[in-house]
Amino acid sequence: MTQFPKKNLFYIPDGMIYLDGNSLGPIPKAAPAAIQNMLTGEWGEMLIRGWNNAGWMAQPSNLGNQIAPIIGAEPDSVAVGDTLSIKVFQALAAALNLNPDRCKILSDNGNFPTDLYMAEGLIRTIGKNHQLVTVDPEEVIDQIDADTAVVMLTQVDYRTGRLHDTKAITNAAHAAGAVMIWDLAHSAGAMPIDLAGAELAVGCTYKYLNAGPGAPAFIYVRPDLANKIQPALSGWLGHDAPFAFEQNYRPGKAIERMRVGTPPVIQMASLQVALDIWKNVNLTELRATSVHLSERFIAGIEANCPDLTLASPRDPNARGSQVSFAFEDGYAAMQAIIDRNVIGDFRAPNIMRFGFTPLYLDETDIDAAVEIIAEVMTSKSYNIAKYQTRKAVT
Amino acid sequence: MTQFPKKNLFYIPDGMIYLDGNSLGPIPKAAPAAIQNMLTGEWGEMLIRGWNNAGWMAQPSNLGNQIAPIIGAEPDSVAVGDTLSIKVFQALAAALNLNPDRCKILSDNGNFPTDLYMAEGLIRTIGKNHQLVTVDPEEVIDQIDADTAVVMLTQVDYRTGRLHDTKAITNAAHAAGAVMIWDLAHSAGAMPIDLAGAELAVGCTYKYLNAGPGAPAFIYVRPDLANKIQPALSGWLGHDAPFAFEQNYRPGKAIERMRVGTPPVIQMASLQVALDIWKNVNLTELRATSVHLSERFIAGIEANCPDLTLASPRDPNARGSQVSFAFEDGYAAMQAIIDRNVIGDFRAPNIMRFGFTPLYLDETDIDAAVEIIAEVMTSKSYNIAKYQTRKAVT
Repeated sequence: MTQFPKKNLFYIPDGMIYLDGNSLGPIPKAAPAAIQNMLTGEWGEMLIRGWNNAGWMAQPSNLGNQIAPIIGAEPDSVAVGDTLSIKVFQALAAALNLNPDRCKILSDNGNFPTDLYMAEGLIRTIGKNHQLVTVDPEEVIDQIDADTAVVMLTQVDYRTGRLHDTKAITNAAHAAGAVMIWDLAHSAGAMPIDLAGAELAVGCTYKYLNAGPGAPAFIYVRPDLANKIQPALSGWLGHDAPFAFEQNYRPGKAIERMRVGTPPVIQMASLQVALDIWKNVNLTELRATSVHLSERFIAGIEANCPDLTLASPRDPNARGSQVSFAFEDGYAAMQAIIDRNVIGDFRAPNIMRFGFTPLYLDETDIDAAVEIIAEVMTSKSYNIAKYQTRKAVT
Repeated sequence: MTQFPKKNLFYIPDGMIYLDGNSLGPIPKAAPAAIQNMLTGEWGEMLIRGWNNAGWMAQPSNLGNQIAPIIGAEPDSVAVGDTLSIKVFQALAAALNLNPDRCKILSDNGNFPTDLYMAEGLIRTIGKNHQLVTVDPEEVIDQIDADTAVVMLTQVDYRTGRLHDTKAITNAAHAAGAVMIWDLAHSAGAMPIDLAGAELAVGCTYKYLNAGPGAPAFIYVRPDLANKIQPALSGWLGHDAPFAFEQNYRPGKAIERMRVGTPPVIQMASLQVALDIWKNVNLTELRATSVHLSERFIAGIEANCPDLTLASPRDPNARGSQVSFAFEDGYAAMQAIIDRNVIGDFRAPNIMRFGFTPLYLDETDIDAAVEIIAEVMTSKSYNIAKYQTRKAVT
């Protein structure tokens, strides 16, 4: 565990213990200068010529190739762009494309809502007999049947941190002739990932990857399938010859066809800085350190905060990189804890959520966080009006 | 014309005459500091709390409300996000939603290809009898019939600058019971716009609005219809209560439902700087100045470059803010001109394109550009190998 933490690479405000990297990672110290350079040196000096001369046009593929090893993917199988919601739509449309005679989209009720919402929108748009079926996470494998076109799951539950077994579920999906989509939003950059032959995967870069608020998403297509997909979102940058300005769409080569519109160049500059850090991260060690920190946190909270009930799986092998506790007055309690500069977050109805990201957290942080949380819980300092008013927090 | 140019607000490299603001606007001088402040002061210091405390979550609507007056739209009718390709898809799906019993999508062969490509993808996804019909720009009105579900046009042709009459065409569409979508990519920020009661409009912010490479797009929905649309791209940030994390999608109020995923916060900071400038721009004066500069350019080129043939309408009222000339060896000629620091661009097969944006151009620039272009054309200095190799330029 010698490589962690890499605190010197990130800016964390003085005195803050940041346990919310599972929602938005902190800023890499190198980001402001790199983005400044993109703004003045590229946009400012090159203007339109930046698309070629600064390599903006190739960035979605270049960045995809840097994300690939983080998610256990082959080279040239990942494209960056858009938002995770859009990439879910793209992946799901592609999956139905690959499995046109079946109607059931199977997911679980622990999936992040936008995945389910985007499926609803796609189904309504198609207007045929497709059905979105959501079951309890434990029941997914049993519910994969001969009518299942696609199994679409988020690997790590955003509320509880429960971790799906990608291999077992992907195998079950394939055995039944279903296509598998993994949403890696809460696992990319949290642990080594086994795509297990899944056809498609999507994920975001502003959580564990630390690329900044609104950083673009990514999509993975298994290389043997990429040329078979007719993209639903057939934008000009996914065209085989975008600058020929042909009247008809011809899909680009392989993963290139999953590009849609003009890529967000400033956000991509930020993503590049974030990915530079990942070149030197050993994911197995990262995961071990994350488990170590999480276990230490759970032990500390359970010893000092009897009102909090572990809502995450106790077995670290069944969890992602976050730990959640249930508490009826969790929203107010989290506000009080945040006011003490320990940053976690709250997810309705009663989940207090904490993320453990070894890149910028160590044992000292964990112990300090436990102490502050215990003080808030013991003193019930959350029990005042200013913490009891509900606000939206992402 | 006293208010133009506003050259002091933009950075243009020394000696460059930038006639490509119709493709990518130059950087506002205030952008680097404002973005730096967002990075360090907001992402850096606030981290996850930036969504509320720095107002990131409300930015798509706030920015939309600043774009509204530029495109002649009502307050609370514009949302910012995604790319223009995605917004075209959204608008077209919404239009078909509003006109479910008709099958024809009418466009013209001067539309920007991604609009046509996205229509193709939507039609394939729906899998019913919808048909994309593209006709010559002059024939659009005659081709609107009782089967036309939607007329989808880009107001200003990206190659020739030909300007559609929004009022005449929108009226014709409505008279036939069709829904009207205007793509304002090449008109937003180029001239006053008359939406003429069109149901939907889309546009981008990195051209005349100067928000930077990959800046987000926008979508307009006529306020009386916004609550009737069931979004095809039903993402969580278009949900009525995104942070309730409900299992089912319930569309948000009015234009809010056209939001999809997490907005690109860094790009939005850049867009905010760009829109600050537009608060003080009189669009009628802007248009008059643009026409004046364009006429001066055309006169200069026609007097000095007999090899170039005007490919734009001669009547300035029938043109947008760009002027194109046809020339068989136009790609090479444009490379030679760019090498002399006059920046226009090339569009296949033979179009040399120049944009006239009064915010940072004046008569002196036009005269200097004409002189350089004339030198290149007269000397045939483009007739050497390095200019004859074809490269993609956006």
